Amino acid sequence: MSDIDIISQYRDQFVTYLNKRNQLGEPKNLYEPVKYILALGGKRMRPILTLMTAEAFGGKVEYAMDAALAVEMFHNFSLVHDDIMDDAPLRRGKTTVHEKWDVNTGILSGDAMLILSYQFFESYPTETYVELTKLFSKTALEVCEGQQYDVDFEIRDDVTVPEYLKMIEYKTSVLVAAAMKMGAIVANALQKDADAIYEFGRNLGIAFQLQDDYLDAFGDPKTFGKQVGGDIMENKKTYLYLKSLEKASKDDQEGLLHLYSIKPDDSTDKVEAVKTIFKESGAVEETKKAIESFTQKAFEALAKIELPEKSKVLLKQFGESLMERTV
Amino acid sequence: MSDIDIISQYRDQFVTYLNKRNQLGEPKNLYEPVKYILALGGKRMRPILTLMTAEAFGGKVEYAMDAALAVEMFHNFSLVHDDIMDDAPLRRGKTTVHEKWDVNTGILSGDAMLILSYQFFESYPTETYVELTKLFSKTALEVCEGQQYDVDFEIRDDVTVPEYLKMIEYKTSVLVAAAMKMGAIVANALQKDADAIYEFGRNLGIAFQLQDDYLDAFGDPKTFGKQVGGDIMENKKTYLYLKSLEKASKDDQEGLLHLYSIKPDDSTDKVEAVKTIFKESGAVEETKKAIESFTQKAFEALAKIELPEKSKVLLKQFGESLMERTV
Repeated sequence: MSDIDIISQYRDQFVTYLNKRNQLGEPKNLYEPVKYILALGGKRMRPILTLMTAEAFGGKVEYAMDAALAVEMFHNFSLVHDDIMDDAPLRRGKTTVHEKWDVNTGILSGDAMLILSYQFFESYPTETYVELTKLFSKTALEVCEGQQYDVDFEIRDDVTVPEYLKMIEYKTSVLVAAAMKMGAIVANALQKDADAIYEFGRNLGIAFQLQDDYLDAFGDPKTFGKQVGGDIMENKKTYLYLKSLEKASKDDQEGLLHLYSIKPDDSTDKVEAVKTIFKESGAVEETKKAIESFTQKAFEALAKIELPEKSKVLLKQFGESLMERTV
Repeated sequence: MSDIDIISQYRDQFVTYLNKRNQLGEPKNLYEPVKYILALGGKRMRPILTLMTAEAFGGKVEYAMDAALAVEMFHNFSLVHDDIMDDAPLRRGKTTVHEKWDVNTGILSGDAMLILSYQFFESYPTETYVELTKLFSKTALEVCEGQQYDVDFEIRDDVTVPEYLKMIEYKTSVLVAAAMKMGAIVANALQKDADAIYEFGRNLGIAFQLQDDYLDAFGDPKTFGKQVGGDIMENKKTYLYLKSLEKASKDDQEGLLHLYSIKPDDSTDKVEAVKTIFKESGAVEETKKAIESFTQKAFEALAKIELPEKSKVLLKQFGESLMERTV
């Protein structure tokens, strides 16, 4: 069976379990939005990582399901509240919760989802429950902090590269890391191995986000899910932008600052001009190097873990398949 | 020392501890609103109940502090999100979080507060942590459900008295009940006693809310904290209203339905007319009876607990002091 097939199998198993558990409670107006957002789909990357990691450490997929569900529930909670904050009309091509219902429903149903995430851990024995919920609280708080940093950075003009890396780590990669560590926890992995798999996920998550920055500017419009150039149009301070400011000539620095102060109706010229600076400053090369470096760190963490070679290969290939989009 | 003094002492101890723990973390824009709302004051009724109950069961006040803090943090989380939903400009006479900052800040800081509540339980030993967090999740979800029922009832015209009682139980009294039970849990009370103190708090909470409904219409403007007649002006379906619809003559029923379909600029006549129907239908008598009945049930639950007489008297007197506002 190919890796794609294996991943699809995890996804199918997860979605089957999700559908079974995703039943409508009372009051309907609170739980209908929960059911709706969870049923919208998505890649289910985080819960798949929980299941895959649990099995890699000798655990049973079925036993890891509630932890996977908690992770997916939390991820969807953050989408519902983020979409309100961004006033986003669409999510996965469908109407967002606060658009379909209203902002108040989005806030309250989101709150319920955060609490429901904790409740999914209640099916585990005491020690496992404690480990999972403590990791969950730490992670959830970091995700909120990452979101706040992201908001803060929009109006700050002195964001540094290390600050940016911390922001994407908190906003995106700690949840990927925690999803994997939870798989290790339910499989009773050694503490050092659970920590190492967290490092694997954390570094892979950062690499993934940096690559997303790169693809947003230079990706193939046919295969990249979002609008190519979108970050540039929105003047989003990505790794490419911050590295360009660091490395570009004084003229190009000023040019970039100017281009990031305007939002022309037709952004074609602006996007091209910015991309030229990204390339000529060496920021593109730096970004590729950083992606490579975080990916490498991820694989080094993985290499340290005592796992059957088959499991390591699967995890590594999953990591590579995420990263293959760069090419 | 009088009971008022004892309660003030609990409050002072709690506020001292709160101030010590209420330090500003990073990012500031996330945690400043948390610090702000927690410092706004309020009666601190719920955390006092946690401390008082812990001590009644032979526990140490200091040891109950983190549970009390979790309860107060959660209560303030619900205020921040509710104030957004109600678009309220003021809370405790001060600007609400979403007014002082913005709606997005209110949502995200509120989310962080919900997670912080869970983290305060982490200072307890395993078994205590598990009991506290499970009770907390159950309670927090019920509070969300109660809030949703309250929203739903605004546009429904077929709300029944039992539905209304369930709404106020979830929205208000389960948190009072859980605050007390958490005190019992940290003091290692017997399961049956922890359950009985929960029943005490739950029934007292319902009685308290029913009395709030009564005072909103018939209270003394000098001593009642909110605007007397406010519920009637807002056409809020309270116990008085629902009982009146049940018991009034057909003419008065129709009159009441009409009065609850209008919002005149000068509401003096409307408020008086509604109050007359509340009285003549017998709804006022019924409401008083219900308050008495829930208070009685609360005291019966308390009577069953094996506690030093001194502790029972203190808890009973605290209950009575809450209820004395009826007179």
